[in-house]
Amino acid sequence: MQYALELVGTYFFAISGALAVQNKDHDLFGVGFTGFITAIGGGSLRDILIGSYPLVWIENVNFLYAIFAGLITTFLFFPYVTKLRKTLFLFDSLGIAFFTILGVEKCLALGLRPEIAAIMGMFSAVMGGVIRDTLTNEIPILFRKEIYASACLAGAVLYLSLDHIGLVRNLNLLVSIGLIIIIRLVAVKFKLNLPILK
Amino acid sequence: MQYALELVGTYFFAISGALAVQNKDHDLFGVGFTGFITAIGGGSLRDILIGSYPLVWIENVNFLYAIFAGLITTFLFFPYVTKLRKTLFLFDSLGIAFFTILGVEKCLALGLRPEIAAIMGMFSAVMGGVIRDTLTNEIPILFRKEIYASACLAGAVLYLSLDHIGLVRNLNLLVSIGLIIIIRLVAVKFKLNLPILK
Amino acid sequence: MQYALELVGTYFFAISGALAVQNKDHDLFGVGFTGFITAIGGGSLRDILIGSYPLVWIENVNFLYAIFAGLITTFLFFPYVTKLRKTLFLFDSLGIAFFTILGVEKCLALGLRPEIAAIMGMFSAVMGGVIRDTLTNEIPILFRKEIYASACLAGAVLYLSLDHIGLVRNLNLLVSIGLIIIIRLVAVKFKLNLPILK
Repeated sequence: MQYALELVGTYFFAISGALAVQNKDHDLFGVGFTGFITAIGGGSLRDILIGSYPLVWIENVNFLYAIFAGLITTFLFFPYVTKLRKTLFLFDSLGIAFFTILGVEKCLALGLRPEIAAIMGMFSAVMGGVIRDTLTNEIPILFRKEIYASACLAGAVLYLSLDHIGLVRNLNLLVSIGLIIIIRLVAVKFKLNLPILK
Repeated sequence: MQYALELVGTYFFAISGALAVQNKDHDLFGVGFTGFITAIGGGSLRDILIGSYPLVWIENVNFLYAIFAGLITTFLFFPYVTKLRKTLFLFDSLGIAFFTILGVEKCLALGLRPEIAAIMGMFSAVMGGVIRDTLTNEIPILFRKEIYASACLAGAVLYLSLDHIGLVRNLNLLVSIGLIIIIRLVAVKFKLNLPILK
Repeated sequence: MQYALELVGTYFFAISGALAVQNKDHDLFGVGFTGFITAIGGGSLRDILIGSYPLVWIENVNFLYAIFAGLITTFLFFPYVTKLRKTLFLFDSLGIAFFTILGVEKCLALGLRPEIAAIMGMFSAVMGGVIRDTLTNEIPILFRKEIYASACLAGAVLYLSLDHIGLVRNLNLLVSIGLIIIIRLVAVKFKLNLPILK
């Protein structure tokens, strides 16, 4: 069940990653490359930093196929999917929430400290987009979007707190993912931003 | 023989990497740093992703010397080498073709799946240039150049296919490198591009 | 003693990293993220390249706390610390000098060659800033600042030379750090640059 969700999440991550640069006249390969980097970037960076080898998508080729499926979907239905921005926004929010908590759990399972797990959970979710934006010469998503990475961090901290007081895992997963999604939706709906330092 | 070719390829990679930013008023150190990053970037990223330690240039200092030799050549003969664009283009094409297939072979030798080997072969060849362009604030080479990374990918797939049906290795190496170079030359000559998604 | 200096250095690195993007309207999270990346980037990249796991800040949570302390200092005293540019410049020079030599020593302790140790010492000191500048879409520090990374490289080479002829470690540390700081101060004071290739 969770494995299926991870594959589906990877599929949607590749689509939203590929679409993020549609206004740049990238060719077919460039769009595919960008989608690929977005999908694998965050988890790969997390695993390289914590030294967890082999990387998930290198060990299990199904993640690669999920990405390819996402890219082919993008290529075939390009004019159609670009109109589904709102749907994609929902999937993207669901995806970053889900991958944040999975990243946290992976770090805990490896015996890392909760402070590290929180940072790595956030990295899993957002660094793919950061790498994509850096490669395509844009200001990375977390410097411009309404409360984005900080929503992931908040969800990670909630998960770790509830885990510390002994909440059962599946409920904790739901609650923490829910918090991230709610923060994202509210922030985008009301254009909320964190204060700017002047 | 192959080891000598690798060193020569590294030498030319450093030169073409250093020259790629000549219009940016970089100082001597900046040009050297850029050439260095271009030469080691792709192979290092590949080895970090697949967890193959120690990195080639850290274990074998001769690769470092090949890079230094390339940088010193660039410094000493700068006005001259910048006029050799066509020659350098040929060496660059030869270099990316060669390093693609060597990257593929390294992954196969480590028991990785062919899908991963194809991606890593392409990464070996092009990611040094991508990292260089990202650092110097340019749109990376593979988003703007005529069929570049996709030529490497095509060569990698051909190599894997011919290897699968049992073609002898040295012949396969020649044919696959040849395909990459021919795609590059034809694409540049006729300004061919992959279709752009609109 | 040295451990305390490393924590203090990390603290100031986080502050100067966070302040480096003040003119970009980054929100609280963006400033914190940037300071964090600057502080951990160079050492993490060094350790990933040489395959030295676990990374320092992942193993020892005190480095994380030193970074958090630096970020909180930045947030609380923002208008005040931005006026301390000269003081921060001194701390930054001290920091890059110190981290260069520590990086060199780590590589020697791991049995790596002096050529690699020199490059990795320089990477430890400057790559955090390079990653920060790349993420925030600026030309990286080492392509624009007066003699910066090359000062670190000079200090690393001096340390390795004096170590080779048997100078006692603590004196060597002081002399080599001194060289880096003096080169930096003189270069900035007299606006010295390395020659530009034309």
